[in-house]
Amino acid sequence: MKHVYQYAYVDGVAIKRSNMANIAVTDGMAADAVTKLLDAGHEVDLEPSSLDGFDAVVIRSATKMTPDAIAQAPNLKLIGRAGVGVDNIDLDAATDAGILVCNTPGSSTQSVVELTIGHMLASTRHIATADRDLRQGNWTKKSLRGTELSGKRIGFIGFGRIAQGVGRVARALGMELHAFDPYLPAHVADAENCEIHADVADVFRLCTHISVHCNLTDETHHLINRDTLALMTGIGADGTDCGNHLVSCARGGVVDETAVLEALNNGVLASCALDVFEVEPAIDNPLLNHPNFHGTPHIGAATKEAQQRIGFEMADLIIDFFNGTTPNSVVNKSVLIE
Amino acid sequence: MKHVYQYAYVDGVAIKRSNMANIAVTDGMAADAVTKLLDAGHEVDLEPSSLDGFDAVVIRSATKMTPDAIAQAPNLKLIGRAGVGVDNIDLDAATDAGILVCNTPGSSTQSVVELTIGHMLASTRHIATADRDLRQGNWTKKSLRGTELSGKRIGFIGFGRIAQGVGRVARALGMELHAFDPYLPAHVADAENCEIHADVADVFRLCTHISVHCNLTDETHHLINRDTLALMTGIGADGTDCGNHLVSCARGGVVDETAVLEALNNGVLASCALDVFEVEPAIDNPLLNHPNFHGTPHIGAATKEAQQRIGFEMADLIIDFFNGTTPNSVVNKSVLIE
Repeated sequence: MKHVYQYAYVDGVAIKRSNMANIAVTDGMAADAVTKLLDAGHEVDLEPSSLDGFDAVVIRSATKMTPDAIAQAPNLKLIGRAGVGVDNIDLDAATDAGILVCNTPGSSTQSVVELTIGHMLASTRHIATADRDLRQGNWTKKSLRGTELSGKRIGFIGFGRIAQGVGRVARALGMELHAFDPYLPAHVADAENCEIHADVADVFRLCTHISVHCNLTDETHHLINRDTLALMTGIGADGTDCGNHLVSCARGGVVDETAVLEALNNGVLASCALDVFEVEPAIDNPLLNHPNFHGTPHIGAATKEAQQRIGFEMADLIIDFFNGTTPNSVVNKSVLIE
Repeated sequence: MKHVYQYAYVDGVAIKRSNMANIAVTDGMAADAVTKLLDAGHEVDLEPSSLDGFDAVVIRSATKMTPDAIAQAPNLKLIGRAGVGVDNIDLDAATDAGILVCNTPGSSTQSVVELTIGHMLASTRHIATADRDLRQGNWTKKSLRGTELSGKRIGFIGFGRIAQGVGRVARALGMELHAFDPYLPAHVADAENCEIHADVADVFRLCTHISVHCNLTDETHHLINRDTLALMTGIGADGTDCGNHLVSCARGGVVDETAVLEALNNGVLASCALDVFEVEPAIDNPLLNHPNFHGTPHIGAATKEAQQRIGFEMADLIIDFFNGTTPNSVVNKSVLIE
């Protein structure tokens, strides 16, 4: 028999579970992972018209789980965020409704690491500009002089697993590592040869290259702003007048885009590359027309490898959950499961 | 007195030298390096109308030192190639004329390393395409799925100092290193954790990512061609169907561009990025219109740091030469200096 009901205790209240769940997938999922869910006996709807009647929903960043959206999904027991950031989920509303929120924190790390390094090198070597010029029939070799990353200081805003991965490649490129991360155990930074600064201003004062790797919270909102950018000197640790460079593949809103545009215009920033924007999709964003800006449309986790890993991690997590096992990556821990 | 004549012996013939030389600079030189030459008592012409009457010429890749050009510079004693490749210099004609040819082999290494890694990541993550799409108002997130470098094999065609530098970063990115280089001492490759293959075909069979780092010679001309590309499997060492990727920041002509265009069209290549072309400047090159191609206009050494290092190395070399000291980086060693 398919329906084997089990019980979990959420805030002391027994919740009935079935090992055959109705799962809505709103922003896509790797095909192999969907197959895994189906093979485990679950039903999967890849194009749900609403979340009403579903036991679980798998989202990426596009779906917004507002209090309203949560209220309209009375059967929901699990929100699975296929990815890392949960700022598109109202965690309080989910917790109040007894809904567990889980993400897949490690699966996209390497993909974001590689995009970040790619953006840094594309910025300092004008790769997007060069290709655009070539396609327009212009051999702009003389105007495309860049600078090296080697010999410069990179400053990480947030030094979690992605920043640590970027740091390892940055070290191989000859960079010196600095970071601001008030939540990081000191031994982690030591192991990565990264100097942690208690005052974020020191990171901006020391570093010519800033890479953002923190979540969007009240604390980090517009942490990269006119004042912090103004602290940067533009002179590399090796003495090169390399200008200041900013990259973010983290989350829109940490970077004040109005301040960045101003800094690009007045030369405080030599370049900026963003994969994430304050408003997405980023259309008609004035940054997109600036010659010293280049961007990508939130593709940090958009690799075959990451999507495969995310899908499998999410499928395993859902299968475990509906079998009565607590997933490892619970975001709203106050929803207790026994 | 300024003119202190000295003598050097080229193929047994005494050549008169002055420590005040007339130096033509045809393709630009870092300002500090020019100053250094002037301070040493030399005369420098940054916009020579011909090479007649000059004792030395400093060139980059744009100036072609053909037998004709050499014949028209009867006073020339030194051709300084500010950079690495000397395929734009007719070495036999220079040697016959008793002209020493020197380059600055190490000065641009790190800049080319960084551009190569930048191109690899820009290719596999569609950075140039993404930026172009964004500027046209299109948020093409769904069509821009890429693949990771981590877990893949990179195959180096030539494993000199630039490839070794790329290899160190590639290892930090999680890649496995393979190379074809018949001239490399085995211990060098061992020290870099790179497997050297005696048959170049094995590199293409094993690797999904090929990076070109050899000189252009009769032996290497069109080494990357329809047949060698056809050996590539498109399946990464980690099992990912990542397609095949080609990068060259070495020298145009090693890559058969007609074969590359065909391979991009029929899917044998998932991407190609070139900094160097068979004909430069590359205008109206059909590759430039391909969606899976991106390029840069021969900017491998185009960084402030490299130009500064190249300029100083060249200035020192010229000053030493006209003081009677043999430069370290003599390319046509049969022009002997005593």
